[in-house]
Amino acid sequence: MIPNSPIRPERIAADIEALSAITEPGRPWTRRAFTPMFLEGRQWLTRAMQEAGAVTQIDPAGNLVGTIPGRNPGLGTIMLGSHSDTVPDGGRFDGVAGVVAALEVARALRDQNIVLDHTLEVVDFLAEEVSIFGVSCIGSRGMSGTRPAEWLTRESGGRTLEQALVEVGGNLIHPAQRDDIKAFLELHIEQGPVLQNEALDVGVVTAIAGITRIEVVVEGRADHAGTTPMRSRQDALTTAAWIALGVEELAKALAAGPEHFAATVGEFEMWPNAGNVVPARVRMLIDARAELRADMERFTDELRNGIAAIAEKTGVTVEEPRIVSDNPPTPSDAGLLDILDAACERTGTRHRRVASGAGHDTAWMARITRAAMIFVPCNDGRSHTPDELATTDDIAMGAAVLLDAVQALDKKLQEES
Amino acid sequence: MIPNSPIRPERIAADIEALSAITEPGRPWTRRAFTPMFLEGRQWLTRAMQEAGAVTQIDPAGNLVGTIPGRNPGLGTIMLGSHSDTVPDGGRFDGVAGVVAALEVARALRDQNIVLDHTLEVVDFLAEEVSIFGVSCIGSRGMSGTRPAEWLTRESGGRTLEQALVEVGGNLIHPAQRDDIKAFLELHIEQGPVLQNEALDVGVVTAIAGITRIEVVVEGRADHAGTTPMRSRQDALTTAAWIALGVEELAKALAAGPEHFAATVGEFEMWPNAGNVVPARVRMLIDARAELRADMERFTDELRNGIAAIAEKTGVTVEEPRIVSDNPPTPSDAGLLDILDAACERTGTRHRRVASGAGHDTAWMARITRAAMIFVPCNDGRSHTPDELATTDDIAMGAAVLLDAVQALDKKLQEES
Repeated sequence: MIPNSPIRPERIAADIEALSAITEPGRPWTRRAFTPMFLEGRQWLTRAMQEAGAVTQIDPAGNLVGTIPGRNPGLGTIMLGSHSDTVPDGGRFDGVAGVVAALEVARALRDQNIVLDHTLEVVDFLAEEVSIFGVSCIGSRGMSGTRPAEWLTRESGGRTLEQALVEVGGNLIHPAQRDDIKAFLELHIEQGPVLQNEALDVGVVTAIAGITRIEVVVEGRADHAGTTPMRSRQDALTTAAWIALGVEELAKALAAGPEHFAATVGEFEMWPNAGNVVPARVRMLIDARAELRADMERFTDELRNGIAAIAEKTGVTVEEPRIVSDNPPTPSDAGLLDILDAACERTGTRHRRVASGAGHDTAWMARITRAAMIFVPCNDGRSHTPDELATTDDIAMGAAVLLDAVQALDKKLQEES
Repeated sequence: MIPNSPIRPERIAADIEALSAITEPGRPWTRRAFTPMFLEGRQWLTRAMQEAGAVTQIDPAGNLVGTIPGRNPGLGTIMLGSHSDTVPDGGRFDGVAGVVAALEVARALRDQNIVLDHTLEVVDFLAEEVSIFGVSCIGSRGMSGTRPAEWLTRESGGRTLEQALVEVGGNLIHPAQRDDIKAFLELHIEQGPVLQNEALDVGVVTAIAGITRIEVVVEGRADHAGTTPMRSRQDALTTAAWIALGVEELAKALAAGPEHFAATVGEFEMWPNAGNVVPARVRMLIDARAELRADMERFTDELRNGIAAIAEKTGVTVEEPRIVSDNPPTPSDAGLLDILDAACERTGTRHRRVASGAGHDTAWMARITRAAMIFVPCNDGRSHTPDELATTDDIAMGAAVLLDAVQALDKKLQEES
């Protein structure tokens, strides 16, 4: 840990310990948005924000926001935070590390009697993870005015998302979209192995990768596995196998460049899936992530060509690949990147620039304000599992960078305005 | 159709029509063993056997047997038949064609006032298809003394197989294994495309392929699909894809020889099967069929070596392949093959020798007597589907071959004895 830093690791450790105790019994660590356990976690966070000197509220989009008014509130708001909800059987750090680091920045400023010129807000976004309503980033999309209206009628457990939003304290009466936020910063665990492998403390996130999901359906023919000669088959599985290997080969080629690229066949289903029947049909869902839009375009083009060539070779029909969803990459604000790099230097933090392969609330906040993120290392890159582990010292290092950056930003934004 | 044959196609067509009408309503064609619909089919068959001059009984193994005593019953029995049960949503010909052809042989002999020296029996074996008890060939295994004792305690729908066997008219009091059968012949649809492709009428079956089932489990590592670099993954799917392609390549090489060989990855399951998670685990079940035991041994050896090489290349763990079941091939009786070839010649039937890739009751009957089969063409090789189609003329051609062969056999067996 940085000597003489106002960031206090023992408070961070205590916060994470307290929040991890609020979990579905016997199922660590599960605190899904809209559940009673989630509301219990928010009660704890509300008290913690108030103890840090913040005025708390649930905003119309269902986010928990702690506000520490600045000396010159007319300058607008600098916001820090992440999310406190988890996936089922998730970890103790994904989201929570960023909320706790933001809290610790507020406490460290108060310990030093520092009041910013800008208003400082600590936020716990609603439902960053895929929620019981099947959608994610509900709070940050609400705050950035990008939450689709049709989401509100989605149902789960006998209620609509609109009803659930009101139950957590949000509303549809007041406008949810903010226009007073001048900058947003999020700390998050890396969810990948790069920082650990390179023995670094912090990753300054250059962009959040675009995510494109592509469905590929192979239509073979069900035949008797014992009696149909090998040369007379239209086996959907072996054609799908060539496609899965093609996806990997293409992704490895694109990943060899300096910018982040990854593609994965994450879903794979086969019909009729019977021991003595030649596979008739396979459905695959490809998850592709690109820091550069051009890489994604090259991937989808070469995928189409590759699939056509495989279908030609095997004589098995493959439907035209279908783009199921397509979100472009979100580059971080260049000015914020410079401030974060400088904060790393000043705090003696070993750092590099990295892209985020995962989606985050920051991608939505970037629609309405300057936004950027920092990553802290997580053990073996493991995430969304009870084994997820980030050290208190690493989170504290990240919080120290945020503390430095927020103060630099408070000055810099005034110079600009 | 053969001119002046005593085989009457219109009776065959009427029988198949009558049996196909006995199906689960709205689910053509479903008449699974042990169901009320199956018993209704057997009532119809019992009357048809009796009208053909047979004395009927359910034997201890649960088979429906129609007996036409010979002039010299001490010579023993020549048996013809197949099975009347179907898979769910099956066809009208698999099994039924062989029972009806056997019936028609008995009728054609009676029409000509021919009584064989041997006793002639027409059989409908119990539960040739995989039954509600999860096992197949229950009747022919009973008759051949190869039904495992532990099968009797299997449960389905609140009763044991033993209880179900008694309900269909079988028993455990009398010995089920027969020692008086001198020869067994079965007509069956091919369930493959060879005869149709070569415009032939009949296949004389040289052997029933051995069936070996092999389970392969790939153990990769679940990682975040967005954040884990391509080079740091242990993707179970792409390793499984290499294995599936290796199985196909090996099978094609073995199938290039004169003897039948086929291998299929019929079952394929992946975990966690989530869009944004690198596949952690794949389980595959390989179904391999070989006319020659040596081919199967070469396949399992090369599969092991191939999997080890793939695991070495990809760095993903693959468990040692596990043999789940292993039945050796059953060669047909050489003397019967000669009789069937000669019968084809005498009846002017276009024929060739073929191996059976599918299992049949004949494989079990071969344990206790001379046994062989003939195949008749089925449209596009389709089977186990409502689309399954064999023409009346083709079944009648096969029945004419059986009629000739039975009479030749009746003489030849006496010469030998």
